[in-house]
Amino acid sequence: MYRTILDYIRRNRLFSPGDRVIVALSGGADSVCLLVVLNELREVLGLELKAVHVHHGLRGKEADRDSEYAGRLSETLGVPFVCVRVDAALYAREHGMSVEEAGRHLRYQIFEKERLDFSGTKIAVAHHRDDQAETILYNLFRGTGLKGLGGMRPVRDNIVRPLLSVGREEILAYLAEKGISYCEDSTNAQTDYVRNRIRSLILPEIREEVNRRAGENILHAGEMAAQADAYLEKQADGILKAWGVRETDEAGTITAQGVDAKALLAEDDIIKNYVIRMMIRSVNESMKDITMTHVESAAALLFGSSGRQVDLPCGLIAVRIFDELWIKRKKQEGSVDKERAVSLPELDFKIFPYKKGQEIPKNGYTKWFDYDKIKCALSVRYRETGDYMTLAGGGRKTVKEFMINEKIPKEEREKIPLVADGSHVLWVIGYRISEYYKITDDTHTVIQMQLNGGKNNG
Amino acid sequence: MYRTILDYIRRNRLFSPGDRVIVALSGGADSVCLLVVLNELREVLGLELKAVHVHHGLRGKEADRDSEYAGRLSETLGVPFVCVRVDAALYAREHGMSVEEAGRHLRYQIFEKERLDFSGTKIAVAHHRDDQAETILYNLFRGTGLKGLGGMRPVRDNIVRPLLSVGREEILAYLAEKGISYCEDSTNAQTDYVRNRIRSLILPEIREEVNRRAGENILHAGEMAAQADAYLEKQADGILKAWGVRETDEAGTITAQGVDAKALLAEDDIIKNYVIRMMIRSVNESMKDITMTHVESAAALLFGSSGRQVDLPCGLIAVRIFDELWIKRKKQEGSVDKERAVSLPELDFKIFPYKKGQEIPKNGYTKWFDYDKIKCALSVRYRETGDYMTLAGGGRKTVKEFMINEKIPKEEREKIPLVADGSHVLWVIGYRISEYYKITDDTHTVIQMQLNGGKNNG
Repeated sequence: MYRTILDYIRRNRLFSPGDRVIVALSGGADSVCLLVVLNELREVLGLELKAVHVHHGLRGKEADRDSEYAGRLSETLGVPFVCVRVDAALYAREHGMSVEEAGRHLRYQIFEKERLDFSGTKIAVAHHRDDQAETILYNLFRGTGLKGLGGMRPVRDNIVRPLLSVGREEILAYLAEKGISYCEDSTNAQTDYVRNRIRSLILPEIREEVNRRAGENILHAGEMAAQADAYLEKQADGILKAWGVRETDEAGTITAQGVDAKALLAEDDIIKNYVIRMMIRSVNESMKDITMTHVESAAALLFGSSGRQVDLPCGLIAVRIFDELWIKRKKQEGSVDKERAVSLPELDFKIFPYKKGQEIPKNGYTKWFDYDKIKCALSVRYRETGDYMTLAGGGRKTVKEFMINEKIPKEEREKIPLVADGSHVLWVIGYRISEYYKITDDTHTVIQMQLNGGKNNG
Repeated sequence: MYRTILDYIRRNRLFSPGDRVIVALSGGADSVCLLVVLNELREVLGLELKAVHVHHGLRGKEADRDSEYAGRLSETLGVPFVCVRVDAALYAREHGMSVEEAGRHLRYQIFEKERLDFSGTKIAVAHHRDDQAETILYNLFRGTGLKGLGGMRPVRDNIVRPLLSVGREEILAYLAEKGISYCEDSTNAQTDYVRNRIRSLILPEIREEVNRRAGENILHAGEMAAQADAYLEKQADGILKAWGVRETDEAGTITAQGVDAKALLAEDDIIKNYVIRMMIRSVNESMKDITMTHVESAAALLFGSSGRQVDLPCGLIAVRIFDELWIKRKKQEGSVDKERAVSLPELDFKIFPYKKGQEIPKNGYTKWFDYDKIKCALSVRYRETGDYMTLAGGGRKTVKEFMINEKIPKEEREKIPLVADGSHVLWVIGYRISEYYKITDDTHTVIQMQLNGGKNNG
């Protein structure tokens, strides 16, 4: 067991001597095994460990028992321990997420915070081989490219996964052999319904009906996909280094990424695809809401004439400018025609830190939003197809549905200004602000928007 | 429907004007739709069609009904038609296959034969989008690389798949709208148990429990995998063109393929993998029995010193010779030590066409085998680990098991010579010949082997 894990750690260079490692410890078998094994390898690898347990404020006594066990185990092993309590249910409500999703968000936030407090260099989590097969299927069924088919990587940013080379059965056998106990269910409870169905229904059925070694076979295909993905990324990067051009603002942030169209045109479709994705990422960070269709429509501009452009999510456009293809941020004025633009209200923006308990203005022309939740560039505009907002309770509604519910006459709907973050609407001016962007106790930074002499003030 | 299919045909260049096309017609909905649609597009695409129905000699009256219907439909459409009768159950027994596998083998043999008779250029088969999702999962669960994840290609050799862009539901709706009938079950009966379980149990469950669009998502990931695979093949081919060396025999057949080790060492692992696979294919055609482990052990020779070698299946070796890595056929003498080699019997080989009903010699020293079934190079040698043979009834047995059953004393087992095709043994000399290689009514070419003064004649 040590041997397998140590080989895996070395082959994938998970740690360097002197690493200070936060170990995510739920108290379930997987994380207990992770802590025990890392503790045994501590000297060999030259690591400092700290165990962090997150109490989600769910599952009452059972969760208390898990926390206590995690603490006791750490003490026995002589590993420093901290337990952090959160309210996952509340966070879920406030952010329009499922409780499981909220739990995951909170855990990684806490691990990262604890890492900084500990002057830590790595966060070790207990995902194992069976989790990997499950992740690959989850991605495949819900839509993914090669990257998702590759599953979880051994290293991502600060996060390392030393157990990816061992299966759940080996973990249980190891703990049994060592006589180490663990808390039942504490890990399962943290995964969502769909993952549980894949794990406990679909994967066993595949093993039973199709192939007993299906788990390993899925991992092997995933490994090939991950290698292919890494190679294609490298090729795409090489092309952008050779044929790319970029614009940056004063702060050095990339505001537009271009590439020589003829050079890209000569490449295979899959490379065009990877290069365009990389261009979008260099301007926007997040690939959220970017679909294959968007990438293909941008690639089609390689065949088009200068000046042609297509809209992408998050306020981006792809545009052909002479011999180059560019990914840029849409200019605010460009997106509405001039006559309509003059009727759009002017807004004053102000950004400042939020102090807990600070009173939030309650009037129709001054609104506060959680600045950190904004993903794309803000735009003030009329509604567009696909616009949606988050309502109380966390559900999503299209702006069209909202306007119908509000009984706004059809001919008026096009005249109501709104503030949007990509297609996610923060504020239908005069009507409603989105739950998602509201100030909560977790808000760090506020963006204040104030109506300023527009015609449609509500 | 026509539009979708025509677009797909054009985008993938399935046909050229003047193509003469064999249409595989089972009588089920999919193939009926294929024939009707191709017939409608005949003039637009400039095609000549001929429908071929294979009667498997199974399912009694139901199969007769299917054949009759296929014939009537072709007549109505004015498409030439032929029905070929085979005995799939017999073929399965004789070749140690499942009946479904035998049916598939026979169908493609017949389509190919009919194509030649028709001076045909293409064979059109009715696989559709749902078959594709099923194929991708089938490959993923049973073990595959990117190629298998890509599923079926629109074109492979002479075979084209015009319906890959439409789903089963669209096919049924189309036939209902046109008032065209079809035979129930005739296609399902041709697929095997495992595929049926994926289609009727696992895929519906994935749609229900994980994602309603899982089918499309799987196809999308498959498309990415296929594109990546094609790109990696191209890169590997480029490397072999630049850095490859080869040896050929008088007939121009490649007998050994080498590559500059330093050049290959500089490449990513996935490229090393693709190059080595391509080298094996160039010497051996078939990649059967070649696993990831074989490829990796060959790749490991890039780090080794000159003279190091590893055995591969099908009588191949990978060997490091100074600055080059080679894939070669093992030399017969090389594989057994000298003292033992002298005791191996000499065999005379003779190859000639088989005339149906020709009498097969029935003695211990002259044996006939179906020459076309031999995949690797033949070798006369003693048994090796992994050797197996096919027995009456179609089962496989290791040579070790066979020898135990025959009550051959342990110390004798190493001394019995055999003739082998890779690890598949044709003849345990003095004991038994493998069912798989026996002469049948389908045999085209015979290889005769005659014992000639060896010491161990049986």
